[in-house]
Amino acid sequence: MLVNQIGEFGLIGRIAAMLSGQTTAGVVRGIGDDVAVLDTSGPEYLLATCDIQIEGVHFTRRAITAYQLGRRVVAINVSDIASMGGYPRWALVSLAIPGNTEVAYVDELYRGMREQAALAGASIVGGNLSGMESGMALDFTLLGVIAPELLVLRSTARTGDSILITGSPGESRAGLELIRQPHLELNPEINRKLLERHLCPQPRLAEGQLLARSRQISAMIDVSDGVIGDLAHICESSGKGAEIEVANLPVSREVSEAALAAGADSIDWVLSGGEDYELLFTARPQAVPELKKMLMDETGTSCTQIGSITDETGEMWVRLADGRRVRPSAEGWDHFA
Amino acid sequence: MLVNQIGEFGLIGRIAAMLSGQTTAGVVRGIGDDVAVLDTSGPEYLLATCDIQIEGVHFTRRAITAYQLGRRVVAINVSDIASMGGYPRWALVSLAIPGNTEVAYVDELYRGMREQAALAGASIVGGNLSGMESGMALDFTLLGVIAPELLVLRSTARTGDSILITGSPGESRAGLELIRQPHLELNPEINRKLLERHLCPQPRLAEGQLLARSRQISAMIDVSDGVIGDLAHICESSGKGAEIEVANLPVSREVSEAALAAGADSIDWVLSGGEDYELLFTARPQAVPELKKMLMDETGTSCTQIGSITDETGEMWVRLADGRRVRPSAEGWDHFA
Repeated sequence: MLVNQIGEFGLIGRIAAMLSGQTTAGVVRGIGDDVAVLDTSGPEYLLATCDIQIEGVHFTRRAITAYQLGRRVVAINVSDIASMGGYPRWALVSLAIPGNTEVAYVDELYRGMREQAALAGASIVGGNLSGMESGMALDFTLLGVIAPELLVLRSTARTGDSILITGSPGESRAGLELIRQPHLELNPEINRKLLERHLCPQPRLAEGQLLARSRQISAMIDVSDGVIGDLAHICESSGKGAEIEVANLPVSREVSEAALAAGADSIDWVLSGGEDYELLFTARPQAVPELKKMLMDETGTSCTQIGSITDETGEMWVRLADGRRVRPSAEGWDHFA
Repeated sequence: MLVNQIGEFGLIGRIAAMLSGQTTAGVVRGIGDDVAVLDTSGPEYLLATCDIQIEGVHFTRRAITAYQLGRRVVAINVSDIASMGGYPRWALVSLAIPGNTEVAYVDELYRGMREQAALAGASIVGGNLSGMESGMALDFTLLGVIAPELLVLRSTARTGDSILITGSPGESRAGLELIRQPHLELNPEINRKLLERHLCPQPRLAEGQLLARSRQISAMIDVSDGVIGDLAHICESSGKGAEIEVANLPVSREVSEAALAAGADSIDWVLSGGEDYELLFTARPQAVPELKKMLMDETGTSCTQIGSITDETGEMWVRLADGRRVRPSAEGWDHFA
């Protein structure tokens, strides 16, 4: 049996089963979440996450500069810490490159990582360099902290909770389309913004911290696999279902115009484009107005209620504008599909 | 300018310079050491290290099984924590593989990692899976802890200190030669032992912890780049020099026989073979007998005094059996040379 036959989430499930029963103390949350939560006996929990970027799979040197790649790999990890409400602190970098790589390329990569880490309050404190025959592998490990009482997990959504999302999902997917189809004619300003959203996503760190401190939200995840895919993660680990209202989805003007130019469905991009690094979270309906106002007042970021958590375990539904209820077609992003 | 023109340590120096001036609190030791030392405001310091293994650079699937590779990548990281006197706790794994990899291969890899981690008292608590066009990249990040008063660094060797090493350096290099030249005829028992030493090195964890708790040692490092290479790291970061006595070097019978069969110099393998994962440490001469006895009594591991720290900053000398003093020819292992 091959890895692409069981898929990324099949493999994760298999590994999680194999690693169950490990006995080291201090593991508050282990395998299965994007971020491990560890109790170091200090005043705060330690958060640990990593993300590996492979040339030819996650990026090509033609489409992204070294500086952008550096920013991007840090942003992705910061987004994971943000989804717990945490505070990034320290990072390790493993970099494998061919010996004939330009030193200037490596310089730019670290400049990007350093700058994006600094924006999140983190420092790069160690790592590892290796040769590689061709291509490039970049693994970024980020450690953060959070007060135990503020920690937000993905597994604690409640029936009847509203589902909210920050910003404009789908813009990263639109940016990817502009890379794939460079001939698409868009307003240069929109073009620039969508490329930036794809290549250098800005994690919603202040937003995540603010939401956690509010004590008003029940579950949170960052959107890397797509809104549907990550909402499914919340539902699975919370033992719940969800219904999304298409009419309520935030579809930015930029996403609309890019989808129109590409002949694509903007709703599909919003629901399953992936790599948005927006925050998807749940809260009691009566808390929603206050949460929206707080986010806008303190960070300038909008958020939108897009549906509700149901008690139909594992059932995901999308209510279309015409009132019909359908199952989402997209499954989120599988790295081995 | 290319990476292989400035070399691994040139590149590390450049990156360290670029990352200097980062301002996150809690960094006791950052870039430049194999292990970052972090103050989480808890009772113990946090230790963080990582090591990336690339197919075709660090291993080939022909020479090492998935299970052995899993054990090996954990052992390498445990060795780094051991060199600080620390206690491994939690690990993250980033794995990039092609979709057509056998699931059974991944199973065996995780079985090896889990077993070796458990031996060190650590659990795998998270990570990341990715596709890859061909080849494989495996990055292992290990977190550990140490009481601040027991932490041993590489930068604190003192003039006049004795230099000691555990076990039998050179055996890993001998094992590598047996893989490269499978026709070499050796006693099967010796053959098996040397291959094991190369493929599944056993980190000197209990030894490192014991040495740190003794409060009798001044500096320590684990030998990955070779005895000369890692002693140079101690000297550089301590602002000292060193002199090694060839006559005192531990040359195991296995190393002698393999070097003889391969027509190689056993002393060269001992001094610069690399990937030994023995501990190289310094202590006052008067503490040496007690340290040797303690290590042997409590762990069954021998250690040997191989030279002394001098005040000749940056000067590394090897005294040959005939009394002549020469500069070592080997420079340790440069990943881009």
